[in-house]
Parts: sequence; C-alpha cells; structure tokens
Amino acid sequence: MLTYIAGSGAMGCRFGYQLFKAGKEVILLDKWEDHIKAIQKDGLKIVGDHEDCVHIPIMRPEEATQKADFIVLFTKAMQLETMLQSLKGIITDKTKVLCLLNGLGHEDVIKKYIPEKNILMGVTVWTAGLKGPGTALLTATGSVNLQSIDQSGEKEAMVFVDLLNEAGLKVTYDEDVVPSIWRKACVNGTMNSTCALLDCTIGEFFASEEALRVVDTIIHEFVMVGEATGVKLDEQAIKDYVMHTSVVAAGHYPSMHQDLVQNHRLTEIDYINGAVAKKGDSLGIPTPYCHMITDLVHAKEHVLKIQ
Amino acid sequence: MLTYIAGSGAMGCRFGYQLFKAGKEVILLDKWEDHIKAIQKDGLKIVGDHEDCVHIPIMRPEEATQKADFIVLFTKAMQLETMLQSLKGIITDKTKVLCLLNGLGHEDVIKKYIPEKNILMGVTVWTAGLKGPGTALLTATGSVNLQSIDQSGEKEAMVFVDLLNEAGLKVTYDEDVVPSIWRKACVNGTMNSTCALLDCTIGEFFASEEALRVVDTIIHEFVMVGEATGVKLDEQAIKDYVMHTSVVAAGHYPSMHQDLVQNHRLTEIDYINGAVAKKGDSLGIPTPYCHMITDLVHAKEHVLKIQ
Repeated sequence: MLTYIAGSGAMGCRFGYQLFKAGKEVILLDKWEDHIKAIQKDGLKIVGDHEDCVHIPIMRPEEATQKADFIVLFTKAMQLETMLQSLKGIITDKTKVLCLLNGLGHEDVIKKYIPEKNILMGVTVWTAGLKGPGTALLTATGSVNLQSIDQSGEKEAMVFVDLLNEAGLKVTYDEDVVPSIWRKACVNGTMNSTCALLDCTIGEFFASEEALRVVDTIIHEFVMVGEATGVKLDEQAIKDYVMHTSVVAAGHYPSMHQDLVQNHRLTEIDYINGAVAKKGDSLGIPTPYCHMITDLVHAKEHVLKIQ
Repeated sequence: MLTYIAGSGAMGCRFGYQLFKAGKEVILLDKWEDHIKAIQKDGLKIVGDHEDCVHIPIMRPEEATQKADFIVLFTKAMQLETMLQSLKGIITDKTKVLCLLNGLGHEDVIKKYIPEKNILMGVTVWTAGLKGPGTALLTATGSVNLQSIDQSGEKEAMVFVDLLNEAGLKVTYDEDVVPSIWRKACVNGTMNSTCALLDCTIGEFFASEEALRVVDTIIHEFVMVGEATGVKLDEQAIKDYVMHTSVVAAGHYPSMHQDLVQNHRLTEIDYINGAVAKKGDSLGIPTPYCHMITDLVHAKEHVLKIQ
C-alpha cells in the first residue's frame, strides 16, 4: 500500500513523517530542490514537541514511477493542477486521492484527472511549519475530517481513514464535510488576506471594531455564496468559530502573510476570497468585499513584483 | 486687511508666504510647537524652485487677538472643528472664511461657526511639502477655484479672489465649484487610502489591472453618492482625470501614506472614502468599497497603535 504526499511543505512533511513512523510505505513529492537534497542527504529532521530524524524517500513528482494506491494532496492551491499533471503516470483507476488544501473549488480541478469515486475532500486542523529545507516544526495536535465526494467511494475510503489513523492523524469519516471546508475557508478568508495586507498578526487585526465589521461582512458573503451552492452554513456558528480561532491564534501571522510579506511569493487569494467572488458572480450574488480584497492582494503582488 | 492662515503645514506655508511676499498682512496659525518656534526664531525658510527666508508672524490659534478679515482654512480635516472653536474670538460677522481642505463634508462643520454668506468653499491643485519645522518645499505651480456657498456672498468674495491673485495664487471664482471638490475627492479616494494600505507610490498602485478595477469601483461609488446629493458629475471625465493625475504624480506617495506609514499619524480617511460611505448610508446607496477601505485604514491605525 503505497502513499504519495504530493506537495511536501510543512503539512506534507507532518503527514509523511507520521505515516513513515507508523511503518507505512510513503514517498514525499516536492519541487523545492534544496528541500529534496537536504532530506535525501541528511533525512527529514523534526523539531518542536519532540526531535527526530527519518530517512524518508523524497523526489520530484516527475521522478515517481511506482503506481500509487493513495495520494495526499498538499500543494499550494495554484500548483495543484501542475502537480496532478505530473502524477498522471502513477495514477490508476484505483488510486484514491485526498485533497487537504486550503480554500475552495479544488474538486473542480481534481475531477479533470481523477474519477469522482476516487476523490476524497477533507479539512484538517493539524498545523506545521518549516524551519528551512529538510526541517519540519511540529507542535500541538490536530484532526482530519474527510468524505468521498461520490457516495459509491465511501466503503473504499475507510481503508485510507484507517491507514491515516494508524499514523495517529485522528481522521474521522464525515458524512457532510463540505460545511467544514467552507468554515475553514471563512477562517482563511477573514484572516489571511487582511493580515497580509495590513502586515499584522491575527490578534492585532482582530483588535478593532472596524476590523470586526470587515470580518463579519466577509463571512456574510461566504455564507451567501456557500448556501446558494447548496451548502448548509450557520453564519453565527461560523462567526463564533472565527472569533475563537482569532483568540487561539492571536500571535500568529497567517500563511498568506508569510507568502506575501515575508517571502514575496504569490498568494492563494484566488482560491479563498477570490473563489467566493467568482462563484458569487456566476450566481448573481454580490460579493464586493471578496472582490475588493482579492484585487488589493493582487495589486500588492504587483507592487512587490511577484510573479 | 488681515488674513489668517489657520493650519500652517505645507500648504498653509505656501499661501502665507505668497501673501506675505505680496505685501499683504498675514498671520500663520498652527499648533506644532517646533514649527512655530523655528519660524519665530529664524523665519520661514523656502526651498525648492527658489530659496528664500521671510520673517512672517506665526502663533498658536488661541494667541490670535486681532479681528480677522479673512481666514484660509488649511488644517487636517479632523482638526477643523477644534481650530474653528479656537478662532471664535477673532471672527466677526464680516470675516470671510475659505476652506481648501481635502475631502468632503467640511461645510457642515464650518456652518456651525460661520454664517453661510461668509463661507467660501474651494479646491486647489497647488502642492507643497515640509522639509522639517520652519522649512517649506515649494515646487511647480497651481491654481485655486472657489465659490461662496451662498450667492449673496459672491460680490464680497471677489475682494478675496483679488487679494489671493495679487499673491500669484491663480484664483478663479467658480460658479459651480462643488463638482471640482468631488473630483479632487475622487483623486484622494482612489490614491490615498490604497497607497497607504499597500505601502506604495501612486504609480506602483496604478500599474495593475486589479488596482484599476478598485479605482473604477471607488469612483463609481463617489459618483453615485455625489449625484444623489445633487452634484452633477461626469464619471468618465473623472476617471480620465484620475488616470491623468496618476501618471503625473506616479512617483509620489500620497499624503495619507505620509500620515499612516511614514509618520504613524491618524489619517483623513473619514473625510474621504468614509464621508462617501456615511453619506451613501444616509441616502440608501451601497458603497461597500468605501466602507471596506475606510475600515481597513482604521484597522491599520489600530495595528500601529495610532491615537
């Protein structure tokens, strides 16, 4: 039973490491040359709650030749399609693919490459960081909720739920995972773009009533669009969840801040607020806040000459 | 004929200097202690297109005792009301007051202190900078358009048009100045808040199509609200004017960038996008872009702990 981790940044390293330590056959895939070389030479180093070093296989996606039983997608959103294209040679009609990317709309991309019965969509509250090439920072605990997007795939999916649980990843098969995916998108959609634009931590942003008005309006747009696509969402419960998260993560810079401000990399805005804006347009639902913040983040990418 | 410049920052220094050089009786008023002391000790220094130094009177507003014939208001928007309160003792029922502040809605404040027949509203394209306490940077040329808000004041207003023109300030009495005030507000409303948030020059911001979408939408909201208040505005002409200004001023950081980013001072956002948002609410016209950018700028003020 061979698992590939497609996209072995911080989260991919966590999942790969935990599977490897549980004795599962796992291969990391990534495109970051320094990261690949460091792990091939010295192993994947783990720091944080405990220290460890494991000699886990890692290669570029186009170097993978063994057929995949299971692929966990952990790319950046804008690299998803390229990754799936690179993996064509190892995907069979039995390969199950689990998407744990942040954001919305990824299933539309994945469906182009994988039959629906083999697609699992999920959401995780595990976290992880990279301390540099080859070194993952793992702290705290988390969980995963996932669901087969086609009911016919549910039974086979349980094999992979068990696999991940044997690696301690605390996975639940969720009969209705989509609202959780939207709820996490609301967290990202209220914190990532705003903290990236204002160059601040989550706690700094959530400290003013003006910021909270922006948060509420963005959540409202997400809920309007989500419900119009048939997802049942509880706006007040989502607001409570976002506020709770803002307290727990107050000292953190969200990942989009890391991308835009700290590393001058392109952001995932098109898959968060931008995805809601686009879906809203197609449904005739106005989403001015999502539109404006998407355009402002892209404008800032241009200012920083990020390509 | 005594003129006070109420608010003697960069623009106040320009107007005061030009009046003084033309032999007019003029007193600068300001609250910035270092600036007052520098000018009282060494005179007002002029650099830029030419160099000069003039010993022009300057004092705090509450120190002014001679009755005013003419007051030119050049405060920051949020200091306008405090300034008018400080000036009560020198205002007579003949004192003409000219408002050249950026932004919208100032006449509502001024009317609380000055009879309508004595209020002149205007707009200027003169520019100026401060190189530090007591030193004004004057380059290029400009003009002023102004109008008495009450027709009965027009004839008396001409005295002050002439006064300013004798100082080379290129003033035109404008039978319909309000559209020009809104047009300038559109320039400020598209450039100031955005460049302050994105920490960039006007040219850097206007370089992407995403930014231009934001610009167009903000202008549209200004035009909708302006027209609903009875101001005749040509949306396409305003867009052209804003685009032209963005080219001419491409290398500049707008004043709100100077306030928020460079000097960590409160911004005038409530008198630009915020004024349109507020007016839009009272008229039932949606202005989500103005609302959102006003709240984001205030959120950034909070992040920077500016009070």
